[in-house]
Amino acid sequence: MTERWVYGFDDLAAAEAAAGGGWEGVRALLGGKGAGLADMTRAGVPVPPGFTVTTAACNAYLAAGGALPAGAWEQILAALAGVEAATGKRFGDPADPLLVSCRSGAKFSMPGMMDTVLNIGLNDATAAGMTALTGDERFVYDAYRRLVQMFGAVVLGVADEPFEHAIAARKAAAGVKDDADLAAADWRALTDAFKAIVAGATGRPFPTDPLEQLRLATEAVFRSWNGKRAVDYRNAAGIRHDLGTAVNIQTMVFGNMGAGSGTGVAFTRNPADGTPELYGDYLMNAQGEDVVAGIRNTQPIAALAAEMPAVFEAFRTTVARLERHYRDMQDVEFTIERGRLWMLQTRNGKRTARAAVRIAVDMVGEGLIDRAEAVRRVTPDHVDFFLHPQFVAAARSQAVAAGRRLASGINASPGAAVGVAAFDADTAEAWGKAGRDVVMVRPETKPDDVHGMLASKAILTSRGGATSHAAVVARQFGVPAVCGAEAIEIDLDARLLRAGGAVVREGDTLSVDGTTGEVFAGAIETEVPDLSDRDLSTLLGWADGFRRLGVWANADYPDDAERARSFGAEGIGLCRTEHMFFEADRLPVVREMILADDTAAREAALARLLPIQREDFHGILSAMRGLPVIIRLIDPPLHEFLPDHTELVAEVARLEATGSDPDALADRRRLLAAVDGLREANPMLGLRGVRLGVLFPEIIRMQVRAILEAAVDLARRGVDVRPEIMIPLSSHVNELKRMRVLVDETSAAVFAERGASVGFKFGTMIEIPRAALTAAALAEVCEFFSFGTNDLTQTTYGISRDDAEARFLLHYVEHGVLPANPFQTLDVDGVGQLIRLAVDRGRAARPGLEVGICGEHGGDPDSIAFCHAVGLDYVSCSPFRVPVARLAAAHAALAAAEPVTA
Amino acid sequence: MTERWVYGFDDLAAAEAAAGGGWEGVRALLGGKGAGLADMTRAGVPVPPGFTVTTAACNAYLAAGGALPAGAWEQILAALAGVEAATGKRFGDPADPLLVSCRSGAKFSMPGMMDTVLNIGLNDATAAGMTALTGDERFVYDAYRRLVQMFGAVVLGVADEPFEHAIAARKAAAGVKDDADLAAADWRALTDAFKAIVAGATGRPFPTDPLEQLRLATEAVFRSWNGKRAVDYRNAAGIRHDLGTAVNIQTMVFGNMGAGSGTGVAFTRNPADGTPELYGDYLMNAQGEDVVAGIRNTQPIAALAAEMPAVFEAFRTTVARLERHYRDMQDVEFTIERGRLWMLQTRNGKRTARAAVRIAVDMVGEGLIDRAEAVRRVTPDHVDFFLHPQFVAAARSQAVAAGRRLASGINASPGAAVGVAAFDADTAEAWGKAGRDVVMVRPETKPDDVHGMLASKAILTSRGGATSHAAVVARQFGVPAVCGAEAIEIDLDARLLRAGGAVVREGDTLSVDGTTGEVFAGAIETEVPDLSDRDLSTLLGWADGFRRLGVWANADYPDDAERARSFGAEGIGLCRTEHMFFEADRLPVVREMILADDTAAREAALARLLPIQREDFHGILSAMRGLPVIIRLIDPPLHEFLPDHTELVAEVARLEATGSDPDALADRRRLLAAVDGLREANPMLGLRGVRLGVLFPEIIRMQVRAILEAAVDLARRGVDVRPEIMIPLSSHVNELKRMRVLVDETSAAVFAERGASVGFKFGTMIEIPRAALTAAALAEVCEFFSFGTNDLTQTTYGISRDDAEARFLLHYVEHGVLPANPFQTLDVDGVGQLIRLAVDRGRAARPGLEVGICGEHGGDPDSIAFCHAVGLDYVSCSPFRVPVARLAAAHAALAAAEPVTA
Repeated sequence: MTERWVYGFDDLAAAEAAAGGGWEGVRALLGGKGAGLADMTRAGVPVPPGFTVTTAACNAYLAAGGALPAGAWEQILAALAGVEAATGKRFGDPADPLLVSCRSGAKFSMPGMMDTVLNIGLNDATAAGMTALTGDERFVYDAYRRLVQMFGAVVLGVADEPFEHAIAARKAAAGVKDDADLAAADWRALTDAFKAIVAGATGRPFPTDPLEQLRLATEAVFRSWNGKRAVDYRNAAGIRHDLGTAVNIQTMVFGNMGAGSGTGVAFTRNPADGTPELYGDYLMNAQGEDVVAGIRNTQPIAALAAEMPAVFEAFRTTVARLERHYRDMQDVEFTIERGRLWMLQTRNGKRTARAAVRIAVDMVGEGLIDRAEAVRRVTPDHVDFFLHPQFVAAARSQAVAAGRRLASGINASPGAAVGVAAFDADTAEAWGKAGRDVVMVRPETKPDDVHGMLASKAILTSRGGATSHAAVVARQFGVPAVCGAEAIEIDLDARLLRAGGAVVREGDTLSVDGTTGEVFAGAIETEVPDLSDRDLSTLLGWADGFRRLGVWANADYPDDAERARSFGAEGIGLCRTEHMFFEADRLPVVREMILADDTAAREAALARLLPIQREDFHGILSAMRGLPVIIRLIDPPLHEFLPDHTELVAEVARLEATGSDPDALADRRRLLAAVDGLREANPMLGLRGVRLGVLFPEIIRMQVRAILEAAVDLARRGVDVRPEIMIPLSSHVNELKRMRVLVDETSAAVFAERGASVGFKFGTMIEIPRAALTAAALAEVCEFFSFGTNDLTQTTYGISRDDAEARFLLHYVEHGVLPANPFQTLDVDGVGQLIRLAVDRGRAARPGLEVGICGEHGGDPDSIAFCHAVGLDYVSCSPFRVPVARLAAAHAALAAAEPVTA
Repeated sequence: MTERWVYGFDDLAAAEAAAGGGWEGVRALLGGKGAGLADMTRAGVPVPPGFTVTTAACNAYLAAGGALPAGAWEQILAALAGVEAATGKRFGDPADPLLVSCRSGAKFSMPGMMDTVLNIGLNDATAAGMTALTGDERFVYDAYRRLVQMFGAVVLGVADEPFEHAIAARKAAAGVKDDADLAAADWRALTDAFKAIVAGATGRPFPTDPLEQLRLATEAVFRSWNGKRAVDYRNAAGIRHDLGTAVNIQTMVFGNMGAGSGTGVAFTRNPADGTPELYGDYLMNAQGEDVVAGIRNTQPIAALAAEMPAVFEAFRTTVARLERHYRDMQDVEFTIERGRLWMLQTRNGKRTARAAVRIAVDMVGEGLIDRAEAVRRVTPDHVDFFLHPQFVAAARSQAVAAGRRLASGINASPGAAVGVAAFDADTAEAWGKAGRDVVMVRPETKPDDVHGMLASKAILTSRGGATSHAAVVARQFGVPAVCGAEAIEIDLDARLLRAGGAVVREGDTLSVDGTTGEVFAGAIETEVPDLSDRDLSTLLGWADGFRRLGVWANADYPDDAERARSFGAEGIGLCRTEHMFFEADRLPVVREMILADDTAAREAALARLLPIQREDFHGILSAMRGLPVIIRLIDPPLHEFLPDHTELVAEVARLEATGSDPDALADRRRLLAAVDGLREANPMLGLRGVRLGVLFPEIIRMQVRAILEAAVDLARRGVDVRPEIMIPLSSHVNELKRMRVLVDETSAAVFAERGASVGFKFGTMIEIPRAALTAAALAEVCEFFSFGTNDLTQTTYGISRDDAEARFLLHYVEHGVLPANPFQTLDVDGVGQLIRLAVDRGRAARPGLEVGICGEHGGDPDSIAFCHAVGLDYVSCSPFRVPVARLAAAHAALAAAEPVTA
């Protein structure tokens, strides 16, 4: 009995039986494309009829040195007869010819690697018949010359250049520039010319027998499996060489066959907002290119209901069937040929964030997908969209068209905003307080600019990267920011910026899009998506059900904490106490504390800070009642709280040179000496964090006292407080032992004074490689670890975040020296090793050790997947990343639970 | 048969038989002290006779609830009779009484933890007899009252205070301040008072029967095994509680028994220079305290030969025997009692570095010890001594007495020197070139001070620690240095320093001792030990035979390299190329290169640097012919080559304020803008090392070209050159891959141009944690690793060396937060983990990978032991540490080969 080499698209059951085992076997036998066409056909989708010559036939053909196996041709002819019956056309019939395409289709997609021949079946006779049917001679001879050209190239190995030269010569002769301007006569002449090229190159005339065309094309596709391109591709992609390719022979259909014909594209749901309605356009008596080209006005898909009710009904039913079959919103191409609907292509449709969420939620309601699948289908970027205002698309396009785009920088913090330019923090704050929308513009920002940044609607800098101070603060507080917009030249003295030819003065309006990095002159209308969107809430609720990682937030202020909580944060992973020191009413006291000559003076200043800090902690612990709050004790080098060194040097030099004000000079000199005394070559690695605590234990005592006094006061009023005290920058267990003693002594004193106590945890940041390496020892003293991956990346990589991005890190990423910016996506190979090691050793030393991450990576989806994999208890990120992190954590859990398929 | 509980010091054989197995068993039975006394006795040393009551007796006593085991007391009495026979005295004999001591002695030394009673046998009658014999009533009653006091405290549990109060009252009554001023009558009266105190406290009179004294004392010593102090000590030291203590009962001998008696101390060899001769003093008719106190003039030991020839001969023979027995130079105490020599104590004698080396070498010649032992006995500090001038001890003492010591700082670089103070590098260089000895004095130093430092005999700074720039450079070049002498106030404007009340002006003479950290006004005579000392050469040659680690040197200049080679360096582990950039004739070109606006301008400057660098490498490769030379490509941040930022800011502000010189202002502003552009918040973690190479490949090409052109030129002249090209600061393998391409392209070009080639290696520093963590990947690209443990410590610990020492690291070490300064002694727990991991992973990826260390730890003996343990191929250190490292490497190998004993 002859083996079966050919399966019609409508005979999937037989292919399944032949393949023996499951869908994989079918794909191996029919190739991916052939299996898909058969699958759609079985689902009741009107796919143009056709059949597949199997991969086994290909292998037999190649093994035999280029001979179709016994019976194959006969089976092809039989299948072709079936197609003729299904279409009512005949192959080679001059009156109403069947045309077919011949395409490769291997088990694994190898896009562009193998060959295709279209319009098989055309010759002078059938071309004349087609012309009569379509009334479009130009179309027919364009199709015909394409057949000759593709056949020549693919089947006969004729070089492409002579064909292109012929077209060029024809255009020159006709005095036109574009192919589109050639007339029917030109294409007919070119068809003849092409046939002459083929004959000339091969010594044989172009085959006019449709069956000969089909047979030669089929064999050529088989041979293309071993073409150089295909072999190279398989080597690179790791695909076996013995799989072979199938050949799909499919009816060509045409939408330009007169009044009953047409073509269109459509989405099964609205891709802009997800509304469950058909959405698309069609054009009668036209080809697909005509719809896309926009030369003629298309009709909305709904109009088809009136124009061709039966076809519309078939279309409606078919796409509903496709959605059910693929369990996702589909983007389809269809053709109506003389009243008959054919589906040419279907694929999952692209959609906006809003649509993605709605479709996912709706499809769960419709029973098409389960909740896990819905969660999987929404991306972190989709969720992020809901958190920030956006420019109205049309308004932005108008601004671009009007030449108002000034520059593009780094999209440092997402969201769009409009406001007047302010060139320093004090101006920004004053205008902001006066109710004006402000865009703060600086070459770069520093910690003492924060009050102005907080009062602004957007931040724009000309220097610094995605992890510059401006970028980090902006993301932290959800303020849109564009950083490092190098095309902008800021003149602080003249209070203006220049970009290209434009000048924007202080007070002029700017529009800034932190999502795209664009900066515009003038105002652009914005719109605000709604985070409380019912569908998004539903989806994030489902995500919460899948994730194992907790999602906490980094928040320094009560309203920050409340926002985080409203976004779903389950705790505060990092409350930085030093931001509290920078506020205007406190900074003088903080400076007094720093510049104190002795412990007594320092303690006096600290005593004045104590009630202020207690109030701060009272607020945040109260906002987070019932949830843990990790409070980090003082971290930054003290000089950050003092005036800028360079400015002081210049001031002293000026006062010295002029000799005008001896009192001011003496005062500035004293201050400069103090600042000089605290200056460090590398402050990042200097006297900060726990090192401050070892040298000045009185600071730690004050802070711990403030935390625990606030906690006890709240607890006595029945508030469930869960403070956790975190020591930054530890590198040796002895530092922590000292801090533990201070904390225990202070807590005992506070509890005795207040006559009441609260539970609290003691722990450390892990942000120095040595801390990670000695995690077992640290865990003996600590109840929790929190990975400060910003600093841990700096020290593990030996890269200063403040310096690196502008200087070399962006160059590194652009030029492929590094795969990604390690401050955005966690460096799993390096930093990740230390994290894994610290988690394992820490938990071995103290089972139940609480372990989380509070670096900016805590809000990065890729990094969150790693955090899940190494078994952290939670990730902590800026409040505005909390919804994103909830989704990403669910993705990580779902991916880990999924069996991996090759 | 009754068990044997007592062994005479002269009956070691019996104790050995009873103990069954070896010396350990004897020590367990007799305790360490008893075993030692028996051992010395057997060796023929005249030890005052006595016996040991065994630890077994102690255990039996304690087990019985405080009863001596059967037969023990009888055996003690029998042994006592033996002692009476040996000494010719009788216990309790009023005419010539035998006195004994009763001391604890457990298997393991527990210093001060258990009890001792001296002068047992004294009572009113024997005291009178002793007085007649010695003619020294004061001595006798002082001894008697001591017996009463010790017995009261140890045996009867009487508190110490009443005794002290009685002495105080007596001194008040006599109107004297010191015990030494009390007369015989006072001590006699105090003896009576003490007896009354004992009687009053215990309700029983002080026992006058010598045998009762002995029995009670023996039992009290047994009981002290379970005293609180002893139990706590054993818990802390991990000593078992069931060992028990022995009791040693030994004859007391006295050197103040008249004309034929005396006492002395002596070394068996000269402890100052090691000459094999007796060295010491004695005093006739005196006690040991008298010799030490220096109240009477002592005689040199040689005088004893004339005064008591037989005793001297016995002494000579005895100490020779002791040296042979202990195989080391001995420091002995002896007493002559009425013509009879007794050795009271012997121990290994302390000695100078010079003596240590000579004695070790001599003893090998004498067959006393083997070479390994000789190498073990010389310490790294001993070797270091030979490398630096020292103050003549007497001259220093005079200077101290004269109040000329100005301050003490950190002993940053060893050696003593005298010179005139110069307050800046240019002055130091000018004066140095003019032939003056200069001490360069600065608050702190910077890279552009190096020319002045090199021209100086010593360096003195008022700021910075043991790893400050000044300290590191000083050690590198063997210039003595005292750093961070905070008591010194430097006034650069007035060109003077103040310390206490003294003022030293520029040009005044200073004496600086970098070994001790002392600074003196005026000159102090110095002496220079001789590194080529024959004995030292011999010893270091032996050390070379034992070590497995190679010893290489860090050297940047040919004469540096030659010195290292003469000290025994087997290669250059670190040749820093940037020092070459700082020299006056090159710096302008380097600045031109840095400030170049484009690649072409940079290449033009580099082209001018090429021949200069080629010349540098020519010199060093030539000096190290036949040995490897690791050349590190450019490392420091570029701003280090530019003028100081703060100074420029002040200058610009001054010029702005005065408006006097618009041209200068414009020029300075341009320069400031350039410096500003290169400024970094944390230059240590900034744009330096390989990052420069990635951004400016033309610099790498120039340096590689210079190295290989020099190497090829030498090779063509028959010189065996072995260059190794080292990339600094790598953190990702991709950086190294890029550098490898540059190096390979450049080498191919050079070899083609020159028509000849040389072999070379390509490798990287490991000085960033990530490099260590990803060592397997790096080793795929590298032929060698060199651990830059200075930077690796900085990054692993998150500590900036430039800032940390003065700010907090010294505080940390002083207060026990850290066990040691991790920049001096390698942090094995943290940094060591990364080194071990990198070595293991690197070698696994590339067997035969060459691995060494070039941080300053390469010259630190403790760190060298670690380097040996992790299997490095070599350590590289400053030339002046090479001899020390050779010895330390031998020690590490010998220690690793030794069986460990508990």
